[in-house]
Amino acid sequence: MSSLLLTGIGSLVTNDPAHGGLLGELHDAALVIDGSTIGWAGQRRDAPAADSALDLGGRAVIPGFVDSHSHLVFAGDRAEEFAARMTGTPYSAGGIRTTVAATREATDEQLTANVSRLVTEMRRQGTTTVEIKSGYGLTVADEARALRIARQFTDETTYLGAHVVPADYADDPAGYVALVTGPMLDAAAGHSKWVDVFVERGAFDADQGRAILQAGIARGLQARVHANQLGEGPGVQLAAEVGAASADHCTYLTDADVDALASSGVVAGLLPAIEFSTRSPYPNARRLLDAGVTVALATDCNPGSGYSSSMPFCIALAVREMHMTPAEALWSATAGGAASLRRPDLGHLTPGTPANLAVLDAPTYLHLAYRPAVPLVTQTFIGGRLV
Amino acid sequence: MSSLLLTGIGSLVTNDPAHGGLLGELHDAALVIDGSTIGWAGQRRDAPAADSALDLGGRAVIPGFVDSHSHLVFAGDRAEEFAARMTGTPYSAGGIRTTVAATREATDEQLTANVSRLVTEMRRQGTTTVEIKSGYGLTVADEARALRIARQFTDETTYLGAHVVPADYADDPAGYVALVTGPMLDAAAGHSKWVDVFVERGAFDADQGRAILQAGIARGLQARVHANQLGEGPGVQLAAEVGAASADHCTYLTDADVDALASSGVVAGLLPAIEFSTRSPYPNARRLLDAGVTVALATDCNPGSGYSSSMPFCIALAVREMHMTPAEALWSATAGGAASLRRPDLGHLTPGTPANLAVLDAPTYLHLAYRPAVPLVTQTFIGGRLV
Ligand SMILES: [Zn+2]
Ligand SMILES: [Zn+2]
Repeated sequence: MSSLLLTGIGSLVTNDPAHGGLLGELHDAALVIDGSTIGWAGQRRDAPAADSALDLGGRAVIPGFVDSHSHLVFAGDRAEEFAARMTGTPYSAGGIRTTVAATREATDEQLTANVSRLVTEMRRQGTTTVEIKSGYGLTVADEARALRIARQFTDETTYLGAHVVPADYADDPAGYVALVTGPMLDAAAGHSKWVDVFVERGAFDADQGRAILQAGIARGLQARVHANQLGEGPGVQLAAEVGAASADHCTYLTDADVDALASSGVVAGLLPAIEFSTRSPYPNARRLLDAGVTVALATDCNPGSGYSSSMPFCIALAVREMHMTPAEALWSATAGGAASLRRPDLGHLTPGTPANLAVLDAPTYLHLAYRPAVPLVTQTFIGGRLV
Repeated sequence: MSSLLLTGIGSLVTNDPAHGGLLGELHDAALVIDGSTIGWAGQRRDAPAADSALDLGGRAVIPGFVDSHSHLVFAGDRAEEFAARMTGTPYSAGGIRTTVAATREATDEQLTANVSRLVTEMRRQGTTTVEIKSGYGLTVADEARALRIARQFTDETTYLGAHVVPADYADDPAGYVALVTGPMLDAAAGHSKWVDVFVERGAFDADQGRAILQAGIARGLQARVHANQLGEGPGVQLAAEVGAASADHCTYLTDADVDALASSGVVAGLLPAIEFSTRSPYPNARRLLDAGVTVALATDCNPGSGYSSSMPFCIALAVREMHMTPAEALWSATAGGAASLRRPDLGHLTPGTPANLAVLDAPTYLHLAYRPAVPLVTQTFIGGRLV
């Protein structure tokens, strides 16, 4: 096992409380990567010896982004739908069916290549962990296929057979829920860590959502929920009730919803790139933070409601549109994402944890928000390897 | 002179009216680069032979972005001021003085390296022409130095001695205008194509602005104006009066201002990354377009009010926030920028014009708005050379 000393780090965000502040930020710092894990982090002047060294010339280093919400297994795109939406056609979940049709038609090789392209794109932008959902197959075989493909890229796979009721079950939603909680779950469970459901008017209601999540939990999956994106609804309360790890979107919340998130410990996943690309109001992040809710930022990268793979963009939007501080936004894009995925080993640069980190062409992490959309990530390490 | 055939172009935006539509877009297209210029553009099946060929596998090709407004000659950054602004401190032009102090202290080598870094960053994002202003020197020697450095990177240099009244002239603005129109202009004129003035409450008024622009015009420079950024004011009318090429910002306009732009042919330069980073209302692009005004999109990249170098980001903001169509936004970021710089040779891919173009990792230009902040540009050609 060889060790690498990264030195000349102008600003090092560790997210390690041992170093103080929300971000455990150190200036004029150094970091040792021992094989696949962090060996040491601290002041440059205290750095131990290592087998090799790389001087970063004052650049900033941050924990790799943990993108806790994405939909990468699909075919085709919906650029024309996007352009129409921007001239006034409102977003509706029904557009998902367009992608379902294209995805069912695609070969395994086509789907795998598309995931690979998007994961590579994410890594170039500093993402070191990504959750990937199924949900564009919506048959037993197609959902299982999507999860098998996703598993090649991440441990954080999510069974989302309950993305929308497919056209072939439009007249029989109860039959579709029976499929999702029965044979489709049987086929998906072996490839999935998580079970998810889109609780929203036009998708699934609270009773359907509860049945789907509980069926998944009974098979050893853990729950996460698409909740309260397009209007107030029961999603957040359901997430708290079943002990879900996260309730994602959280755009429309009642005071009771905020209380439920705070008291249950369910992470609120905020996905501002979706509000950007659907021209919708942004979630009220300050209300959640002030109530003590743990907030994660994620891309929700998908071909319909928002096709950005950029966690730095989510940070810039969180600061500009949701009034998070740059520090809060970075924490939520790293440690917050790790909390959302119940991965206490991720999202911080503490000795013994995986060496997942990004190097920025900037003196501090502030530039992620200060320089929106500029590709600042120059190197990404996953498990100690430059990717 | 060798020729290169780019083939397998899924979508080719030419901005050439000969091909129809606003963008002269061709599908399944090809393009020949003859040395430094465009030799031919058309359907792939009609492509002539060339010395070598590159198959782009369905990618889109667009004219390189023409960024008609930037401030790249400076030292230091203002990340902390940005973070404070995001928590409520409003933007004021006075912050410019922070950068003036840092810029005066910097060596030629430091300033040149910073411009080089930012120009490289822009090119990686598809920008093939950039206008660069002085304005952080504000002494005879420092303004001349800034323009000499800018000239190493572009023909489109702009003398902006009238960026703000520097602290050392706070009690004598008339004295500063005399300097700007006298010895400073003498020193700057040989390195500059353009003269610019920041007409705004807290900067320069209409009479001062007129004197500065007319002095520059008398020395053979052409005029452009920073106008109507922070409130209504005389900037746009002054631009029309003196025959300026552009009035940039145009955030607060009266009906008379819109009429003046339309009837004079002054290009309205919209800089939405500034509204993003100052959390300000966006200009009303539709009102301008509907009145027949020519609109350019530019970054205004600078360390104070907005430090993005990304023209794709300006396009995404133009579509999301200013209700421009993706086609209008792309036109304004290419041909519109060229109009703003009075460069009819730029901004379109017509045989005989410079081979300035960008290749996108996307099937069409729509993805520039559809996939915000994703670094989609894979190759940039300037004068036929891959940069
Ligand atoms: Zn989602
Ligand atoms: Zn400017």
